[in-house]
Amino acid sequence: MGSRLEVTYLVEAAASEIEARARALAVEQSVEMPVSAITERIVLDEIVGRVEAIAPAGEGRFAVTIGLADATIGADAGQLLSMLFGNSSLHDDVMLHDVTFPPATAAAFGGPRHGIAGFRARLGVGRRALTATALKPQGLPSAALADLAARFAEGGIDVIKDDHGIADQPVAPFAERVPRIAAAVHEARQKTGGTTLYVPNLSGDLDRMRTQVACARAAGVRAVMVAPMVAGFANVHTLVAENPDVLVLTHPSFGGASRIAPPLLFGKLFRLIGADAIVYPNFGGRFGWSPATCRALADAARAPWHGLAASLPVPAGGMTRERVPELLAFYGADVMLLIGGALLEARDDLVAATAQFVGAVHRHADVRP
Amino acid sequence: MGSRLEVTYLVEAAASEIEARARALAVEQSVEMPVSAITERIVLDEIVGRVEAIAPAGEGRFAVTIGLADATIGADAGQLLSMLFGNSSLHDDVMLHDVTFPPATAAAFGGPRHGIAGFRARLGVGRRALTATALKPQGLPSAALADLAARFAEGGIDVIKDDHGIADQPVAPFAERVPRIAAAVHEARQKTGGTTLYVPNLSGDLDRMRTQVACARAAGVRAVMVAPMVAGFANVHTLVAENPDVLVLTHPSFGGASRIAPPLLFGKLFRLIGADAIVYPNFGGRFGWSPATCRALADAARAPWHGLAASLPVPAGGMTRERVPELLAFYGADVMLLIGGALLEARDDLVAATAQFVGAVHRHADVRP
Repeated sequence: MGSRLEVTYLVEAAASEIEARARALAVEQSVEMPVSAITERIVLDEIVGRVEAIAPAGEGRFAVTIGLADATIGADAGQLLSMLFGNSSLHDDVMLHDVTFPPATAAAFGGPRHGIAGFRARLGVGRRALTATALKPQGLPSAALADLAARFAEGGIDVIKDDHGIADQPVAPFAERVPRIAAAVHEARQKTGGTTLYVPNLSGDLDRMRTQVACARAAGVRAVMVAPMVAGFANVHTLVAENPDVLVLTHPSFGGASRIAPPLLFGKLFRLIGADAIVYPNFGGRFGWSPATCRALADAARAPWHGLAASLPVPAGGMTRERVPELLAFYGADVMLLIGGALLEARDDLVAATAQFVGAVHRHADVRP
Repeated sequence: MGSRLEVTYLVEAAASEIEARARALAVEQSVEMPVSAITERIVLDEIVGRVEAIAPAGEGRFAVTIGLADATIGADAGQLLSMLFGNSSLHDDVMLHDVTFPPATAAAFGGPRHGIAGFRARLGVGRRALTATALKPQGLPSAALADLAARFAEGGIDVIKDDHGIADQPVAPFAERVPRIAAAVHEARQKTGGTTLYVPNLSGDLDRMRTQVACARAAGVRAVMVAPMVAGFANVHTLVAENPDVLVLTHPSFGGASRIAPPLLFGKLFRLIGADAIVYPNFGGRFGWSPATCRALADAARAPWHGLAASLPVPAGGMTRERVPELLAFYGADVMLLIGGALLEARDDLVAATAQFVGAVHRHADVRP
């Protein structure tokens, strides 16, 4: 008998219907055909999804746990998505809530190559929280982005990432932009003695992303950002495996379009395929996520899990310097705070605003809740 | 001045708030930063998203149309998704409703290489509707799948596709399965004089999908199925461009997880990146889509649109032979009906059941509504 993933869905249904719905869900996410028409014993025993548990979950919903054969997935990250939620995503009343992986499946995917410890090591930073910002807006030429990056670095920020809208547009092509920004950051580091890390954004198909990684490497950059829901899970997983020395930061672009619980999608699944750090929309910013969702996401990213490296949570999306103490009290030190637009608003005072943000994080005691 | 995509979102908001929400949406999907902090004239004029229209859309929602600069996208299909719905997908009260593309953008993406006419030409079939079925269940060895395929072909079906759960699992690896099934279908065609087409399912990263296409070609198979939401839009677009002689059928796996209007996602965006035929869950089957949604999807796939080839709609998901007259009256002849499980239920009578399905479609007059 092979092992099974335990997949929990939240299903809207009447109590009188939930058993039949659960059985239908188990079939939809495995053999996708009438079980009565299956003649092969081994398929019935090992492949057909199994209803493991049904429990009331409030608000007219039930938590339905289905056992899905690990053998149907292997270590193909794309196939993992199809098996977890391929057809059932087309049912409006089903939400993918959580997954428990067999240890061998987790090991086969491998998780982050660096994670929180890797970010700390690369930056030479001990137990304090990390700081990050974003280069924006899209539409700026490479020279202007490099100038911004230099000023952020002078302000002492740990990580500077491209905005995810900055791809490979003619106004700032990757091959021109990345060496230029890397050089500007390098120069600023020489001046300040800091360790600021630049993280360029990958885009396009797997070939183009590989070319971009090679270009980044040539410029001395061994950290990249990628949006798994856009790039395709399997391609991100491949990039992680091919570049064991590169830090991988994930962007949530297109990820909220799913009806997958954010702690599962960002905290577990992104971690599973190798995200060293995970950007997500924080509570109280421009997005409507609750503190509970954000905490569950950060917990899933950082908790001990099949021996996989812990991923670094990166709350973002409308954060401000004033919230640093609140956010560090909430998240503790194993976090990277990302403030973009609110620093850019300082315009000519960008270096000072950055330094204030950085100073607030450095000064904060580790008051892990 | 560059041209702009006109992107329409449905936004839940109070009438007093909708103007501010619309402006915020235009910023979120473009420069993602406070506009007041942008100093460059060209970015303000050409890159910042522009609110083009706001109109009540019923049920407390407004249709907000944003103009997004074509220059931010180029012809990168992944970047297209990020620009259309990257961050706003993270807002629960926003739905991506429709997009109007500038002609040059549509031409740059290119659309289907074959479309409806290409399927008809390959199959040697005139104006009647086409028939399709699926090989299932996952877990069967290659020999059993090949036997099923032979019987479907003997029944005279036009297209046999792999179930999307059949990937590259050890029980039926692609490199073993596809030549075997292709040979079985070829043999059945020799017997019946039919033109049945086998369409294997691609999975994995771009490299693996390329290897699979090459393997299919070597077996004489020039048609493939792929799930763009899993594989990544840019990778599918690349495969289409690299294989201009291959028919591409898309599977909706993971696609319903989005809050994107199905006619847009499946009918327009899948067509834009090159889907010759588009599988989607039909009304009245195992999925809850309405006839209006299905008609809008089929219309979007088939309507004249920037000179792109028309994609073939493939309604599926719990269809039965009894519904053939109803469905052909609804869709007309430019459709491929896909019945999987309901044929497999016939078990030993599979060939006869297939022949009945095929006969019902062949006999039906073209009563395009």
